[in-house]
Amino acid sequence: MSGIKVGIINVTGYTGVELARLLAHHPGVELASISGRSAAGKKLNEVFPHLTDSELVIDSEIGAVEFAFSAMPHKESAKEVIALLDRGVKVVDISADFRLKNAEDYPRWYDFTHPAPQLLDEAVYGLPELYRSKIASARLVANPGCYPTGAILALAPALRHDLIEPDIIIDSKSGVSGAGRTLSLQTHYSEANEDITAYALDGHRHLPEIIQELGLLHRQKSPSITFIPHLIPMTRGILTTAYAPPASGNKKSAEAVRQLYHDFYRDEPFVRVVAAPPHSKHTWGSNFCLIYPTVDPRTGRLIVISAIDNLVKGAGGQAIQNMNLMLGLPETTGLQAPAVYP
Amino acid sequence: MSGIKVGIINVTGYTGVELARLLAHHPGVELASISGRSAAGKKLNEVFPHLTDSELVIDSEIGAVEFAFSAMPHKESAKEVIALLDRGVKVVDISADFRLKNAEDYPRWYDFTHPAPQLLDEAVYGLPELYRSKIASARLVANPGCYPTGAILALAPALRHDLIEPDIIIDSKSGVSGAGRTLSLQTHYSEANEDITAYALDGHRHLPEIIQELGLLHRQKSPSITFIPHLIPMTRGILTTAYAPPASGNKKSAEAVRQLYHDFYRDEPFVRVVAAPPHSKHTWGSNFCLIYPTVDPRTGRLIVISAIDNLVKGAGGQAIQNMNLMLGLPETTGLQAPAVYP
Amino acid sequence: MSGIKVGIINVTGYTGVELARLLAHHPGVELASISGRSAAGKKLNEVFPHLTDSELVIDSEIGAVEFAFSAMPHKESAKEVIALLDRGVKVVDISADFRLKNAEDYPRWYDFTHPAPQLLDEAVYGLPELYRSKIASARLVANPGCYPTGAILALAPALRHDLIEPDIIIDSKSGVSGAGRTLSLQTHYSEANEDITAYALDGHRHLPEIIQELGLLHRQKSPSITFIPHLIPMTRGILTTAYAPPASGNKKSAEAVRQLYHDFYRDEPFVRVVAAPPHSKHTWGSNFCLIYPTVDPRTGRLIVISAIDNLVKGAGGQAIQNMNLMLGLPETTGLQAPAVYP
Amino acid sequence: MSGIKVGIINVTGYTGVELARLLAHHPGVELASISGRSAAGKKLNEVFPHLTDSELVIDSEIGAVEFAFSAMPHKESAKEVIALLDRGVKVVDISADFRLKNAEDYPRWYDFTHPAPQLLDEAVYGLPELYRSKIASARLVANPGCYPTGAILALAPALRHDLIEPDIIIDSKSGVSGAGRTLSLQTHYSEANEDITAYALDGHRHLPEIIQELGLLHRQKSPSITFIPHLIPMTRGILTTAYAPPASGNKKSAEAVRQLYHDFYRDEPFVRVVAAPPHSKHTWGSNFCLIYPTVDPRTGRLIVISAIDNLVKGAGGQAIQNMNLMLGLPETTGLQAPAVYP
Repeated sequence: MSGIKVGIINVTGYTGVELARLLAHHPGVELASISGRSAAGKKLNEVFPHLTDSELVIDSEIGAVEFAFSAMPHKESAKEVIALLDRGVKVVDISADFRLKNAEDYPRWYDFTHPAPQLLDEAVYGLPELYRSKIASARLVANPGCYPTGAILALAPALRHDLIEPDIIIDSKSGVSGAGRTLSLQTHYSEANEDITAYALDGHRHLPEIIQELGLLHRQKSPSITFIPHLIPMTRGILTTAYAPPASGNKKSAEAVRQLYHDFYRDEPFVRVVAAPPHSKHTWGSNFCLIYPTVDPRTGRLIVISAIDNLVKGAGGQAIQNMNLMLGLPETTGLQAPAVYP
Repeated sequence: MSGIKVGIINVTGYTGVELARLLAHHPGVELASISGRSAAGKKLNEVFPHLTDSELVIDSEIGAVEFAFSAMPHKESAKEVIALLDRGVKVVDISADFRLKNAEDYPRWYDFTHPAPQLLDEAVYGLPELYRSKIASARLVANPGCYPTGAILALAPALRHDLIEPDIIIDSKSGVSGAGRTLSLQTHYSEANEDITAYALDGHRHLPEIIQELGLLHRQKSPSITFIPHLIPMTRGILTTAYAPPASGNKKSAEAVRQLYHDFYRDEPFVRVVAAPPHSKHTWGSNFCLIYPTVDPRTGRLIVISAIDNLVKGAGGQAIQNMNLMLGLPETTGLQAPAVYP
Repeated sequence: MSGIKVGIINVTGYTGVELARLLAHHPGVELASISGRSAAGKKLNEVFPHLTDSELVIDSEIGAVEFAFSAMPHKESAKEVIALLDRGVKVVDISADFRLKNAEDYPRWYDFTHPAPQLLDEAVYGLPELYRSKIASARLVANPGCYPTGAILALAPALRHDLIEPDIIIDSKSGVSGAGRTLSLQTHYSEANEDITAYALDGHRHLPEIIQELGLLHRQKSPSITFIPHLIPMTRGILTTAYAPPASGNKKSAEAVRQLYHDFYRDEPFVRVVAAPPHSKHTWGSNFCLIYPTVDPRTGRLIVISAIDNLVKGAGGQAIQNMNLMLGLPETTGLQAPAVYP
Repeated sequence: MSGIKVGIINVTGYTGVELARLLAHHPGVELASISGRSAAGKKLNEVFPHLTDSELVIDSEIGAVEFAFSAMPHKESAKEVIALLDRGVKVVDISADFRLKNAEDYPRWYDFTHPAPQLLDEAVYGLPELYRSKIASARLVANPGCYPTGAILALAPALRHDLIEPDIIIDSKSGVSGAGRTLSLQTHYSEANEDITAYALDGHRHLPEIIQELGLLHRQKSPSITFIPHLIPMTRGILTTAYAPPASGNKKSAEAVRQLYHDFYRDEPFVRVVAAPPHSKHTWGSNFCLIYPTVDPRTGRLIVISAIDNLVKGAGGQAIQNMNLMLGLPETTGLQAPAVYP
């Protein structure tokens, strides 16, 4: 194996290990160094037997690499990222630490003061469908959250084309792996199985990110957005159902809306506008986002449904898509495997 | 065992057998006769081993009873119901055949011409929380659909108290048993497991029922309602998340809204206004509906979440609640078992 | 509510709260006192919303009762039990602390020295199907483990009637709730979902209990038993598949074996010998054990399959069955609800 | 895309579509033709949206190819295979139609008279770990059943090395996709979810195949085998737990057994002898078989546990492994993706 040496900080969380899976046979880079606090000194395939042949040893810190992913939790990730940039290493940060442009949002939403607010301007929001060229020349990319990825891709064409009033309801349903590998009663099997609940009704941490990006897409800067996430009994997948009233003076048929979405995403390697409401299962393990826009025949409301795998397009896969762009590799390298169905 | 003799038509579907389970130890009635096309001649505990000791034989038609439940599919149910009424038997019809007041809705939504439109006026919509006294004196009660039960109970206090503009989005998530026992690819295990999808985007059959009842609750008769159901990988349970803008001139705090909901349902035996977003699991196997109303702190929108077991409060349990009222028995008879958790 | 006052020690685990559910409408006793370390001071329905109307407050210790269940973990339970007996309170201990007759097994299997070995003789093993009359006169009953309940009920008729050589393989498959409410990676949703694994291959703690009781059932005191438990992705239920060679000189047809099992359990209120391999689902939430014995047509081996709900017949339900016997109440009081299916 | 043209007969079942997924980016062959009765005329990505970009049209018969997979049901597959061989096309048959060497087994186990018994000798049983060189030169390979793959790989080293008496119990637990895409009550979501059951106690169709192959591995030709399959609530995966008494005169420690298994599978690209009981999840979507052999410390019995993905190593993946060998391609081509975890 050869190629550019890359590293993963905190490989032992679900996003970290998903990166390791996706990089296992990536033809352009070599996974050269991995770190993880809980399992330092062990081989990767000892901790994660599905990576049958990866004998790479987990270190307490990553070694010499040209490129790194930080899969650390927020607040801790920023420190790692700053140190990496100082060493001249390009970084995709999977935490939220460089997603928000307004430094004041960090104490409010994440309970810490940002240690490098000047980097917030430089960091590029890593949604290739919106920021491809900026990503390609960035040294720091902030990988979007899983919910924002599904929500923004669902709504971007509608906002860009002024199809809707900025009065948006986003009702998302996520599999449990989105909550990570850290134990909690909420993600205890007997609690989460055969159950659905809504959570974070006072404001989920992904909300400011959604507001920021949807605001940038709309001529009117402050859309009124309600975002309610739900936890459902499956491991992977997010289905997002977004609702908005049609823009007065720009009502379109369902067919016209669908055509417009098709055109918007025509050249995108990982977005498909589909002919029927998508199943999250059809994205399982893959980097694809499936989108179905329609118009409620009775009320005229725009309804858009998107499906992604929260750990791939919603995390590790998108991070590699960003890495490919940043390293000048073909964007789809290592990401072409179809979803595993059923 | 003694008591009033009751029968179940089509005991072999999920609602039919759920009625049999709930009636197994009902102290006021005796399950005396059951019918089912596919299993006629067999004992109930042969087809359904969980009813360990029910040696009742499934007939092709039900025999002499004072009260009957029809768990037949729509269109076929109406015929059975008419025949029962002619025989002087009181009926709870679990199909949709007597839920809609406007006979013209049947060809449009259910593809048949109603055989007895004059009964649509007489039939009482079987939601005890709204129509208790009418139910008590009825000979024909139309048991609500599972989705409408969750949606109407979530929104009734808000509409009665003019808390919202009639611009309502209802996003529901249902377990798979709601689709019944009839085989389909959509409910094939390997398709439904680890999957979520939205369906019926052009209009679910429960929509006219929701529109009818929410319209009756609101001074403005034709609210603008979008209702999108989703199928999620669990057997039982419906979680409904409803969104509506606050009525201009009547904005209330989350706390005030919650108090108002508490007051509205204060004396209800099966509705509980809870202090946190409910889990569908907390209603598993029980007749309870848990409701959590709140106000989105940023947009002022009212958000109400309700949880029910689709086969109990959403079908068989509510049918027995109606039966109890119609027979003059205490409303909660046979329905007091708490949910089975976890 | 009236009746004998009973208490539950450690109501906040899955067995404790299952006891509370089953006692909620028990007509012969009153749940008067509950304790729990993690939630002291809270109302039961606050911590467990499915117990909608239970306003009983969780204390740090239980108060004055005539009867108590200890749902404490092993080692800690013994202390509580000893104190209760000293106060003259009858006890069903749901931990393993009084199940094993040989005090030396405790250091070996449970890592502690038993504080009251003299009570091991007095304590009655709480399997009513084997020890009904002793239970009725006991002041201390050791409630069997979930796996032993399924395994012993599956094999008791075969051993009593010398149908098999004592060369037994017990392959059990359990839902995840058997592992309790304490968090662990093994019971983290994303790990346990869509997964099966065998565990405790060096000897599960339920093994000495199984060996002890099967040994007592067989003329030859030390049968050779291999017991392998598996964790499968469901919340409730244990299916046990037991295999043993036919006793030489006593080979019987499958039909003869089934008749013998029928006869053995003819008068048992909670055991049913069924006509086809049982589904764990058919015991969901109920106190029934379904058993299917057969003979492998090619090898002559006896195969017996049993299904129980691990939290009911495998824990809380059996504990109440024992309580009923100890208090002179009809054995089935409060336990007659059929399983919740589907 | 270039390479050898291959076809799939009956692409619309789970094995057929899994082949299509695995071949989507196979660098050595081109999926050139697919057939399927139920969906003829449709594009593959219309019927299976997870194959986002496959515009291949499903035909009623496959066209000109050099190599074909038959994923037809048994009995129907034989006809297709015979016709393909006549056309000079090499075939991997995924049905059971060429697995059994004794033509008389077909009427007994599969209810049909074999149309080409002379081919049963020629056909090679497609387990590369046992028959690699024969497969490489075959024109017809019979792909093993999913249960036999897991069972034979678990037991082959023990039988070859005379570690056990041929007195074997095989207790297998399978996810639901093994039952295929054809609808049945048993695989209806609400029936299979939260349930486990044993089935085919009178003899599963995979039994003669297991007997045949284990017999060939053992000096004593007719081992006594009991095989009981169980259906568990997950989509993919088979875990097999096999039990056998140690060979008298050849008792080995667990460590010695493990070393022997390591040596046996040292050069196998898709078998890994692991250090702890495997999780089926660690094979999800991959072609790996994980095996854990041990010795019961109390009884000396050999216990071997194997895990596979029933649709990959148990069906489509193994079929491609066989194809690679038959076409002279590197054996692992297109099959190196690690399992998708969690």
